[in-house]
Amino acid sequence: MATPAIESASGTLAHDVRDLALADQGKRRTEWAFQSMPALQSIRKHLIKTQPFKGLRIGALIDINAETANLIIALRDGGASLSVCSPNTDVTQDDVAASLARDYSVRTFAIQGESDEVHTHHLEAVLSSKPHFTVDHDGELLFRLIAKPSVAPKETVAGSEGTVRGLTRLRALAKEGRLPYPVIAVGDSQTKHLFNDRYGAAQSILDGILRATNVLFAGLTVVVAGYGWCGQGVALKLKGLGAHVIVTEIDPVKAVTAVMDGHRVMSMSEAAATGDLFVTITGGKNVIGREHFDKLRNGAILCNAGRLNVEIDMETLGQSTSSRRPVRQWTEEFTLRDGRRVHVLAGGRPINLVLAEDSPASVMDLFLANHALSVEYLLKRNRSLEKAVHSVPHDIDRQVARAKLEAMGLKIDRLSLEQEQYMGSLSEPS
Amino acid sequence: MATPAIESASGTLAHDVRDLALADQGKRRTEWAFQSMPALQSIRKHLIKTQPFKGLRIGALIDINAETANLIIALRDGGASLSVCSPNTDVTQDDVAASLARDYSVRTFAIQGESDEVHTHHLEAVLSSKPHFTVDHDGELLFRLIAKPSVAPKETVAGSEGTVRGLTRLRALAKEGRLPYPVIAVGDSQTKHLFNDRYGAAQSILDGILRATNVLFAGLTVVVAGYGWCGQGVALKLKGLGAHVIVTEIDPVKAVTAVMDGHRVMSMSEAAATGDLFVTITGGKNVIGREHFDKLRNGAILCNAGRLNVEIDMETLGQSTSSRRPVRQWTEEFTLRDGRRVHVLAGGRPINLVLAEDSPASVMDLFLANHALSVEYLLKRNRSLEKAVHSVPHDIDRQVARAKLEAMGLKIDRLSLEQEQYMGSLSEPS
Amino acid sequence: MATPAIESASGTLAHDVRDLALADQGKRRTEWAFQSMPALQSIRKHLIKTQPFKGLRIGALIDINAETANLIIALRDGGASLSVCSPNTDVTQDDVAASLARDYSVRTFAIQGESDEVHTHHLEAVLSSKPHFTVDHDGELLFRLIAKPSVAPKETVAGSEGTVRGLTRLRALAKEGRLPYPVIAVGDSQTKHLFNDRYGAAQSILDGILRATNVLFAGLTVVVAGYGWCGQGVALKLKGLGAHVIVTEIDPVKAVTAVMDGHRVMSMSEAAATGDLFVTITGGKNVIGREHFDKLRNGAILCNAGRLNVEIDMETLGQSTSSRRPVRQWTEEFTLRDGRRVHVLAGGRPINLVLAEDSPASVMDLFLANHALSVEYLLKRNRSLEKAVHSVPHDIDRQVARAKLEAMGLKIDRLSLEQEQYMGSLSEPS
Amino acid sequence: MATPAIESASGTLAHDVRDLALADQGKRRTEWAFQSMPALQSIRKHLIKTQPFKGLRIGALIDINAETANLIIALRDGGASLSVCSPNTDVTQDDVAASLARDYSVRTFAIQGESDEVHTHHLEAVLSSKPHFTVDHDGELLFRLIAKPSVAPKETVAGSEGTVRGLTRLRALAKEGRLPYPVIAVGDSQTKHLFNDRYGAAQSILDGILRATNVLFAGLTVVVAGYGWCGQGVALKLKGLGAHVIVTEIDPVKAVTAVMDGHRVMSMSEAAATGDLFVTITGGKNVIGREHFDKLRNGAILCNAGRLNVEIDMETLGQSTSSRRPVRQWTEEFTLRDGRRVHVLAGGRPINLVLAEDSPASVMDLFLANHALSVEYLLKRNRSLEKAVHSVPHDIDRQVARAKLEAMGLKIDRLSLEQEQYMGSLSEPS
Repeated sequence: MATPAIESASGTLAHDVRDLALADQGKRRTEWAFQSMPALQSIRKHLIKTQPFKGLRIGALIDINAETANLIIALRDGGASLSVCSPNTDVTQDDVAASLARDYSVRTFAIQGESDEVHTHHLEAVLSSKPHFTVDHDGELLFRLIAKPSVAPKETVAGSEGTVRGLTRLRALAKEGRLPYPVIAVGDSQTKHLFNDRYGAAQSILDGILRATNVLFAGLTVVVAGYGWCGQGVALKLKGLGAHVIVTEIDPVKAVTAVMDGHRVMSMSEAAATGDLFVTITGGKNVIGREHFDKLRNGAILCNAGRLNVEIDMETLGQSTSSRRPVRQWTEEFTLRDGRRVHVLAGGRPINLVLAEDSPASVMDLFLANHALSVEYLLKRNRSLEKAVHSVPHDIDRQVARAKLEAMGLKIDRLSLEQEQYMGSLSEPS
Repeated sequence: MATPAIESASGTLAHDVRDLALADQGKRRTEWAFQSMPALQSIRKHLIKTQPFKGLRIGALIDINAETANLIIALRDGGASLSVCSPNTDVTQDDVAASLARDYSVRTFAIQGESDEVHTHHLEAVLSSKPHFTVDHDGELLFRLIAKPSVAPKETVAGSEGTVRGLTRLRALAKEGRLPYPVIAVGDSQTKHLFNDRYGAAQSILDGILRATNVLFAGLTVVVAGYGWCGQGVALKLKGLGAHVIVTEIDPVKAVTAVMDGHRVMSMSEAAATGDLFVTITGGKNVIGREHFDKLRNGAILCNAGRLNVEIDMETLGQSTSSRRPVRQWTEEFTLRDGRRVHVLAGGRPINLVLAEDSPASVMDLFLANHALSVEYLLKRNRSLEKAVHSVPHDIDRQVARAKLEAMGLKIDRLSLEQEQYMGSLSEPS
Repeated sequence: MATPAIESASGTLAHDVRDLALADQGKRRTEWAFQSMPALQSIRKHLIKTQPFKGLRIGALIDINAETANLIIALRDGGASLSVCSPNTDVTQDDVAASLARDYSVRTFAIQGESDEVHTHHLEAVLSSKPHFTVDHDGELLFRLIAKPSVAPKETVAGSEGTVRGLTRLRALAKEGRLPYPVIAVGDSQTKHLFNDRYGAAQSILDGILRATNVLFAGLTVVVAGYGWCGQGVALKLKGLGAHVIVTEIDPVKAVTAVMDGHRVMSMSEAAATGDLFVTITGGKNVIGREHFDKLRNGAILCNAGRLNVEIDMETLGQSTSSRRPVRQWTEEFTLRDGRRVHVLAGGRPINLVLAEDSPASVMDLFLANHALSVEYLLKRNRSLEKAVHSVPHDIDRQVARAKLEAMGLKIDRLSLEQEQYMGSLSEPS
Repeated sequence: MATPAIESASGTLAHDVRDLALADQGKRRTEWAFQSMPALQSIRKHLIKTQPFKGLRIGALIDINAETANLIIALRDGGASLSVCSPNTDVTQDDVAASLARDYSVRTFAIQGESDEVHTHHLEAVLSSKPHFTVDHDGELLFRLIAKPSVAPKETVAGSEGTVRGLTRLRALAKEGRLPYPVIAVGDSQTKHLFNDRYGAAQSILDGILRATNVLFAGLTVVVAGYGWCGQGVALKLKGLGAHVIVTEIDPVKAVTAVMDGHRVMSMSEAAATGDLFVTITGGKNVIGREHFDKLRNGAILCNAGRLNVEIDMETLGQSTSSRRPVRQWTEEFTLRDGRRVHVLAGGRPINLVLAEDSPASVMDLFLANHALSVEYLLKRNRSLEKAVHSVPHDIDRQVARAKLEAMGLKIDRLSLEQEQYMGSLSEPS
């Protein structure tokens, strides 16, 4: 793919997408997703009315798909002008990117499978818009900004960060006093952990495994490595589908929790010899490695739903293999030296991103609504906030949840004055 | 598509498949499936050794896919020569059909999407092989045989029937004394109901819905119409995924069972106004019809996993609609006169067949192993058996289950002599 | 306890209960249970109106508790005069027995803990009422009747049998042509298996275990021996409470079912070394015996919920023990020769009967309503029915289920004429 | 009950228990519980060896039962001398109290059902021991100490607090700078929330309801008010037993979580008209009050598992009632003016404390082991710690969990050096 050549009249690159002709399909898909996003619907209405982003330039590094498109549109409808590119070039939905560019005046730079070179161009294109606000992923935009202080837009006043990894990096930066502007941590709000990870990602992972293998979960022994929010969700749903779940962990508290939730717990060493299917969701490296390959049962299936492609040690597996061949579209069979066959899904890359469609819209809804409110919150307060990573206030989680309940037509209770007084009085000596 | 023209040297039609060049892929897929079919593996070994079908011509009307291909191969390896065609032209896997024809000398007549005319040619091609034994679907082969007594092969001595509908028809025929040969009812063995329906089909249905919609099951209100084997499985798995399940039924015993299994029960009339997603699995007609369309919530999703395309009254829905358009590959949006939108998956055809890959191999394994043993059983006894529909002996269910347990490396108990005597003695007066 | 001495004025023993003064409490308890028995309520109304048992003498051998009392009362209200005694002397509720005698004119002969001698007197007292109809348990009344043909009341024309064991015995008798009158098999109706066994007994068993031990089910490894109706229910509920369930079986089909339901399956030999808690529900003998005691983990807990006290080989356990002592009211600790401690609940007798209160009223309701309708059914037809064990017609199951649904305020669907025709037409050749 | 008169030789009250003759039974019960407490076993060994409490006087206000007795014994075995009394006079196990006094030299002042006057004497007896360390409940001991500064033992240097309410009060005190010594918050450790509340209390609540009512959970509509740790556990287990769960909440985030966990959510106003059984676990007041009583279905059952007896407005219920009577040991029937009957369990007091045996030993184990380690931790650091409420360090949660895993024979993974470096490197800019 050549360097993007499409330039706007003013000489600025206005967009770089696969094919504007895909925009019709992309628009339809974006609107269909929006129907399942009642919280964002409600917040978009509020943004349209209050125009809190009037005149604001937002630069966003964010997956481009039918769901995130609706966040981008909501920010735009709140008055912002946006430039966007994508962190995971694998998963860009080209039709949605085309529609953003054509139908919503968003400067969109994202093509599925773009080369590293093109990707860098796209990042630069976004930064060249001199954003006041960065919507970031892994801190990529922010680190680029501080790497070239000469060209860094001085206008940038605040940002959001959506990934746990990005937050870790930015917090380290803040500790050293080098964070250039306040950042709000949308990546670890309660909404994200509960809904995106425990419900959304969990279902996507199972969906991805089914598409890759069509195994029957009922009666299958599945090893879930990592009992964080996402691992808990996967394990619970697998149990609900009739699988036998084995959990591996490094944290004893999580391990005991897994036992009491009805799962078996063992070391990966022991689990390696027992499981039919393995799902890694730890955020760590080589969770399944050399010493485990030796123990796997003939026919074992390995997949990763965690970090990049590092949780399964694919390099060592390749070296232990006498032959390999694809057996289904996303399934590769490795024949080990001793004749055992092992199957790896999606080359060890995150199965939910590669194969499934990531979290369903109804769940992305909550996360993205939270994101929109967090941007608004930070901009309102950014003069008074110190240059640090700020947590999403619990009130935003509650506001999002309230919008969701309303959309579902569900009512909850409120404390009466008397009840509130009683709760308060509990803190008084009796 | 033109009338098939490929003829063997002898003037007989040797096969009619999409493209023999697909055979490599088909073979790989068939072998991959076979790895998940330990029961059939064990029975195939037995058939290879004992050659019970030596010299037997089998004519089979059976879905052509990677799993059924392994039944066909096992029968062939047991000594039979086979001619096969497919009852559901939608779901034929062309690559597998190509491999059967090229790699396994099976006279294969099946092309995905074949026209009615071609389909009839294919049926005739199978019958023209003068089968001794028919592997049937909906009784189609058998009814064709008795319809033209003049040309009916006199050699046909026995058959199997795989569908509930076929069994109903054949039993009616037997009642009138018109069944021409004994038939074994593989379509209602315990193995089929338990494993194929409750576990296999249930998972496929959910898989199909996910592929069509990517909805989040957690928190979704799903109406399951019909609490038979398959409906029970779907409801249980949905509950395990966090959905709220509502069951509709016409049988009060099944309805109370559903309540005690933790589901809500109501009439479809009431459910229509409550559900987010509807799945019909009743075997009946117009389960969701005119009076229900009026009550559906805006955005409701309808799909069928039961009989053909008759469970949702698509004709009436079409008439009530002011506009319709596709919103995702398998999802069509109907806008009703009053503005409510309703989504129908796969045009109301069985979602598990159209979108998913039907039951996983590990489950088809049991059903197909059962089928192979039933053919063997019937052939051994067919002289002594009357011209009726015979149940699969429970011993075959047990033999299949034992092969499966062995493959999983699981041991179960046997009664000691003393224990058997005790069980026996319970029937004696104390 | 002395031989009962209470005689009616006419010289007949009118009742023999612990203490008539308990009747107030018994009446309250019976009425409370009746509130949870809507199906029986509805059928009792029908019986009061139609008086189908006018002039009929019924002799019943049936557990005497608050729930069964309501069946007895319903039969009485339908016109019958009843004489009753109890098969399980352990579980007689003395207050309820007192109320039956005092408040409902039922000739009641049942005292908790009655000696064998007294028990025999009670049986004779019931038979001496010359019943037209026997409500039987284990076939006890019937075998007594045919044992003494001289004194056997010739009036007895029909009976019902409530236990699986009784049915086995009576069927054997029928086979030999010796069954003296038609018997209806209330003990194996669908209502019984589904509701009494899968839901009612299952909960009672867990309740009994909790009362005896107060163990935490979450995280506990529980071995369920036997995957029949009751075992399935226990395993499912245990899984729902967070236990790890291991199933042992002798039937391979049930074993595969257990695997696919998400449980582990192994031989008792292997399970013995793995489980924390063991529940036997097989109907067999010495399910946990000598070879298993050797393998039990220190602290293992054994209980039986199946047949009498024979499923755990208590005799051998006693012989392998160096000391034993009670540690909680229903829990005895056995210290084996090698120092391991094993705990047995309720002396190996059925935990649900001994400790808990047996099935909840709302479940007994269905079984007892079924029983009442079966008695009515048999009496209507008893002239035309042969002397055999007759199944409960499925219509009665449906009638009971319908009464239950109505009581819960739940509506289900009915087929329209068109839908019925469609279902019918499926049997026609297409 | 008269003022306690038993004085030790020295004139100090040495103990006040129901009857020392109960000590044998109490000792057996305490030892039986200890068998299910592997974490505390392991920590007790450590305390015996290291004697960290040598010479320390501990005054404890703590429920006296077989499980807590083992904490008391462990502290004593670590070198402390203890004086103990009980905050919930309802639930004192008199036999255990007797054994503590007779067999373990613990100055024990606790009698089930003791009058308020006696209770005050008991509290004073504990304080008169001039404890260096207070094990507190609701902050009762601490508030008494500061209330009479003149007599307050100056020796008190630190304390622990086990209840949420106590922590609220003590934190308020600390805010005002009035907390006299550092306190460790054992009442809100992760161990407590996860294991005690989510698993232990949840099971106890269901157990209590079963003992009071013997209802069948399968098919029952149960309203759970409050979706905190405990409510979540109760709802999950109820679902696992086949109940239909409705959750009421005041927090929208918890409400959405409940929906996605598969429960229905509505306001109590709506739930009141729908539920068969109600369980309040909110910590608030009048959760079921006047406006709800009007809507309850005939036969509804109400119980509280939360705060004292305030969650159900018993006073108003009493006023709305035309008659009331006991129908089972712990169940009272209220007949409302319009004839509807409502049943209240245990007079609205916490069902798990009154009827069941509170959390099983295996769960109390974790909480009590945590408590013992927290006491040790605080004493080691108490000079360096400010006078505030200190959280239990997560390391203690981990240490307890590790002991539990070891006891269950379960192994978990450890990060390799390389893996740890990788996790660390994630914080570096890439």
